Order: sequence, then structure tokens, then C-alpha cells
Amino acid sequence: MGPHPAVAAIRLAVRRVLHDVLTDLQRTPDAPPPHDRRAAHPPRPPHPPHTPHDQAASPLVLVACSGGADSMALASALAFEAPKLGLRAGGITVDHGLQPGSDLRAAEVVVRLTALGLTPVDSVAVDVGREGGPEAAARDARYAALDAAAERHSAAAVLLGHTRDDQAETVLLGLARGSGIRSLSGMAATSGVAGRYRRPFLHLDRQTARKACMVQSLPVWDDPHNADPAYTRSRLRHEGLPALEKALGKGVVEALARTAQLSRDDADALDTWAAQAETTVRDSTGLLECAKLYALPPAVRRRIVRRAAIDAGAPAGSLFARHIEEVDRLITGWRGQGAINLPGKVVAQRQGGRLVIRQG
Amino acid sequence: MGPHPAVAAIRLAVRRVLHDVLTDLQRTPDAPPPHDRRAAHPPRPPHPPHTPHDQAASPLVLVACSGGADSMALASALAFEAPKLGLRAGGITVDHGLQPGSDLRAAEVVVRLTALGLTPVDSVAVDVGREGGPEAAARDARYAALDAAAERHSAAAVLLGHTRDDQAETVLLGLARGSGIRSLSGMAATSGVAGRYRRPFLHLDRQTARKACMVQSLPVWDDPHNADPAYTRSRLRHEGLPALEKALGKGVVEALARTAQLSRDDADALDTWAAQAETTVRDSTGLLECAKLYALPPAVRRRIVRRAAIDAGAPAGSLFARHIEEVDRLITGWRGQGAINLPGKVVAQRQGGRLVIRQG
Repeated sequence: MGPHPAVAAIRLAVRRVLHDVLTDLQRTPDAPPPHDRRAAHPPRPPHPPHTPHDQAASPLVLVACSGGADSMALASALAFEAPKLGLRAGGITVDHGLQPGSDLRAAEVVVRLTALGLTPVDSVAVDVGREGGPEAAARDARYAALDAAAERHSAAAVLLGHTRDDQAETVLLGLARGSGIRSLSGMAATSGVAGRYRRPFLHLDRQTARKACMVQSLPVWDDPHNADPAYTRSRLRHEGLPALEKALGKGVVEALARTAQLSRDDADALDTWAAQAETTVRDSTGLLECAKLYALPPAVRRRIVRRAAIDAGAPAGSLFARHIEEVDRLITGWRGQGAINLPGKVVAQRQGGRLVIRQG
Repeated sequence: MGPHPAVAAIRLAVRRVLHDVLTDLQRTPDAPPPHDRRAAHPPRPPHPPHTPHDQAASPLVLVACSGGADSMALASALAFEAPKLGLRAGGITVDHGLQPGSDLRAAEVVVRLTALGLTPVDSVAVDVGREGGPEAAARDARYAALDAAAERHSAAAVLLGHTRDDQAETVLLGLARGSGIRSLSGMAATSGVAGRYRRPFLHLDRQTARKACMVQSLPVWDDPHNADPAYTRSRLRHEGLPALEKALGKGVVEALARTAQLSRDDADALDTWAAQAETTVRDSTGLLECAKLYALPPAVRRRIVRRAAIDAGAPAGSLFARHIEEVDRLITGWRGQGAINLPGKVVAQRQGGRLVIRQG
């Protein structure tokens, strides 16, 4: 008898990603890997397992584990699949120090990961700052710690337990910003320096991960932050998304995740177009010519304007659609407007048919 | 003392659209007008009012009015602004015949529109079919009636009372389909044959329209369908969207409306790209070459595939992202797959490095 369907599902998801990691390692050991090749590859036959004596030299894959159901399921699947592919499996848990006893919690996760057969297993305590709000600050600290751990162990990849449900929440958070399709594209299946981070569960639902933990009798920990209505994501998870499902039907999470993928591809294509077009709209001194910008589709033109503002020093995160709209009107609705102030003390103005964007 | 801010807001919105209508009439009387030029035009000085004696010959603008607050506000603003621009203002109300007494209701709306000074005012009874569900069938019948009325009266435009809140709901309905950014782009400010339909309130919130009715003492009618939880849009309005606002903050409706505009521009640009690229990926016999398709960005390639499937007879509304994904794998993940069945008895297969899509 095979494993429970939920366990089979999490293992298959991890196996596919480990294959990708191996392929990238074998193909171009030092080049950055291509981005999400989800659709680009048919399933491949498994690699022959390495023989025990090259175990020490075999590549290491880490799992980032909070002790919650998603990442515990991921850890269990990694522990099962990695050795069959001649990979070593390790784990890392980050102690954010935001709750009393979080150090004990982290120690407990280390014990559980070790019990799964992972090695090495690190617990790393971080200092969470305040920049960008509590959720962003915790995330920044976490990724810095994961990056450091990956470097320290020369890990080939770090697996993250984000599920399709997390992806749906991320799309809705992006939607609330109203800043266009890039913010609707959620999390990438592959991200980070040299494609370090991989998200095997991005097409799997949270329920499957929970079920897999249950049937494998894995103890899991429910982070109280996940249920704390002080956090936007938590409110979205427990109130916003269920209400949306009630109104629109059960397929909402899947639809949001599919929207993420489609939006990502669309945003990539338009960024490519804008980068190409950008080289054709500058005069001999390198200034942007308004007449040439005007002839471009608005979607392409606004991307060029946005890029120019960021290059001039405007912080991407503070640059909203309304800023770009206003600068765009210097091109499309010129009636002698004055200079426009953008975040980061950047100023945009039209001078002699040129769009000049620079730090003031 | 000027009018109440809500009344000023609805009048300004209508005045801007009437200017656009006039400009389009004067520029190219027979050519279809360009699409939404929202950002393309600075505010223009008002046209000199026509003298009374060319009143009969002056262009007619109709308002589509259900008797609800949004369209009653629209009718009142049209009645106020049209004469100042030398335009005639008329109205049309559609009796869907879905509720007992709907004919009396329609007659009442005719009286109210006439009292505002609109002329002509038509009430048109329609038969609502079943195709596509109750909401789609009612919409189809309504637009057919509005088209016919516009033709009958040679109207220059038909104004529709959709607000920013309606737009936000439409974006969420599109999101639930998960079929990409075109379905996120909501309603256009200008649509229909020759840009007949105009939506002056697309950037105005529903609350402003209601307020404008109240301060003008306009009686309004609340369609019980709008509160009937049997309708998806009604559930979204009364439960889904408020819950989302509670989780994400009050700016959600505005963010959704902005997402619509940005998505529309992006989708337009990508459609343009796909149409251009499509001419370069066919062989001398007109078949799509897989190698050339493979070299395109996924977002462009999938649009070409989708267009080819529709041209072959697949109904656009039944063609989902997963269909296109599967056909795309004939190009990106070729391992000798068989023919793929698409809606409308259309079959896609790979033959000799060509993608062949035709009705089977």
C-alpha cells in the first residue's frame, strides 16, 4: 500500500523541486538558474541515487521551518526524498524573539527536525526591527538569517513552505495596494540570489499539508500570530478570504493563485518590452523625448517613467500609481505644468520636449 | 452659494464626458472614436452654448436609468449639463419583466425622468433569456434594448451609471475567474459600437451618487435584486467586499478600480504585441511554427495560442487558462502528447514542428 494521498502529494511536490535543483547544479554550477520553469519541463525520470561514500560531498538542501504544519510537512517530505536523489537534507528555524518562550519553541523545532533525520539543523535568533511595519520587519530579519545560513552551509537551495493559500493571500494584499499587475503576481516558485529559494507547495493547498502532518503523526505548532487580528494577513486569512469564498465560490483560492502566475508572466513580458523601448526614446544626450514616449502604449510608457524615477533615486516601495500618472500627464496632457515632486526628493519636469527626472 | 459637493461632483463627471462626446462628434463624425482617453486630454474650455434655434438638430445623449440612485443621479446631472453644451438629453429605462409590477416601476421612472426635463424618454420591455445565467441574460437583453434605442433616436451616446464600487465588484468577479489580467480590467470608461456607451461615474463612489440624490430630493428605487443573496454580485457587495475592506482597509475599492485601469492598459499592450508577433511565427503555409513560438515570452505566446483557438471556433467564454496551458505544453514541453480537445470541438495538436489548431 502506498502512502496517504496527502503524503504522496507533498512528496511529489518536493521531488519535482529537488530534480530542478539537481538539474540546475549539473547544468551550470555557477550561473544563476532560469526563473520559474514550471511549464517548461515535462516530468523527468528520477536520477540514480548516489552511492553512500559520496554522501559527505553531496549537495545540501535546507528547509526553513517554523514548526507550523506547512513547513513541518515540507521538512518531512524533504527528509524522505533527498536521500533518494543523493542530496543531503538540513533544516533551519528562525527565532524572531517576538513572543516569550520563542527560544524554547525554536529548540523544540530543532529536536523535531533532527528526529526526521535532517542534519545539520540550525536555530538562529534574530533581532526584528521596525522598518515597514511588524510583518515586513520580521520577514526582512528572517530572510537575512536564511541567507546567512545558506551561505554558511553552502546550501544548494532553501525550501520554503508557502502554500497556494499563502499565495492567494499575497495576491489580495497586492490587490489592496492597487499598484498594478506586478503586485498581483504574488510569490515566485523560485526567487532570491541565484534562485536559492524554492517553494514546492505553491500549487498545493494548506489543507493537504495539514493532513500530511496528521497522518504522519507529526506534532505541529500553530503560531498565535497567524490568528492575531492585529495582522493584516491574519485578518485576510480568517475573515476576508472566507467571506470572499462565500460570495464567489470555493474556487477563489485557486483562481487567485492562477492570477498570480498569469500576472507574473504578463509583468515580465511588459518589463522586457519597456527595457527595449527605453533605449529608443532617449535623445543624443540621454534625455527622454516626450514625443517618442507619447507614441508608446501607456502600459509601456508608464513602466519607462517608473524605471526612470527609481533610477533617479525614488524608493520603489513609495512610488505609487498616482505618482506615475501625474508624471505621465507631462507627456500626454501637457499644458505647462510645473515640476512634480516624487518620493525620495526626486523631481520630474518637462523641459524643451524632454522629460527630466532627477534628485532635486 | 454653489451646489452641494456631491452634486458638483456628479455634474463635473458628466460635463467631462459630454465634452468628450462633443469633441468626438466634431472631429470625426463617422469614424469610431478612440478608446478611453482619460489621461490623454487636459480639461478643455467649455464649448459656447448653441443658440435655441438649432435645438432640434442638436445631438442627443441618452441616459440609461433603472430608477436607482446611481442612474437617477446621472440623469439629474445630464439634465443640468446637456443644455449648457447645446446637447439634448433623453432617457431610457428597461423593464426586465423579472418582478411583478416591473412595468409600473418602469412607468414611474419615465415620469421621474420627464420631470427632470429629459426628452425623449422611453420605457422598453425586454424578454430575459437564460443563456449564461440570470445576471448575464438580463445584461444581454438590457444592452440589446439600449442599442436599439440609441439607433432609433440616432443618439450620440448612452450614459451608464456604473460607479467605482461597481467597478471594484467587477474586478473581484473577474478575479474569481482566474483567467488573467483582461478579466481584471473591469468595465471601460468608453465601450460599445463606435464608443456609444460612456460611464461618467467610473471614478466616483456610490455614496456620492446617493448623496447627490438626497440633497436634490430625487426619489430613488432600490432594486431588491441588489440585496438578494442569490446573486453573486449582491453577495459580493454586501458581504465579500465589506469583509475585504475590514481586513485590508478602506482603500480597497479605490485600489480595485485602479487595478482595473492598469490591467486594461497592460492587457491592451500585450494584445498589440501578440498581434504583431503572430505575423512572424507562421510558416509559408500559414501554420504556427513551434520553435518560433517557443522563443516568445510566455505571456505573448499564450495570447497567440488563445487567439488561434478562438479563430478556429472555440468560444472565448469557455476557453480557460488551463486549456491554453495544456496547448502551450505542446510547445514548451513536447514529449509526443496527443491531440488536445478544446471547447467548441476545436482540436490542437503538434505536427512536424507546427501547432495545428482546427475544428475537429
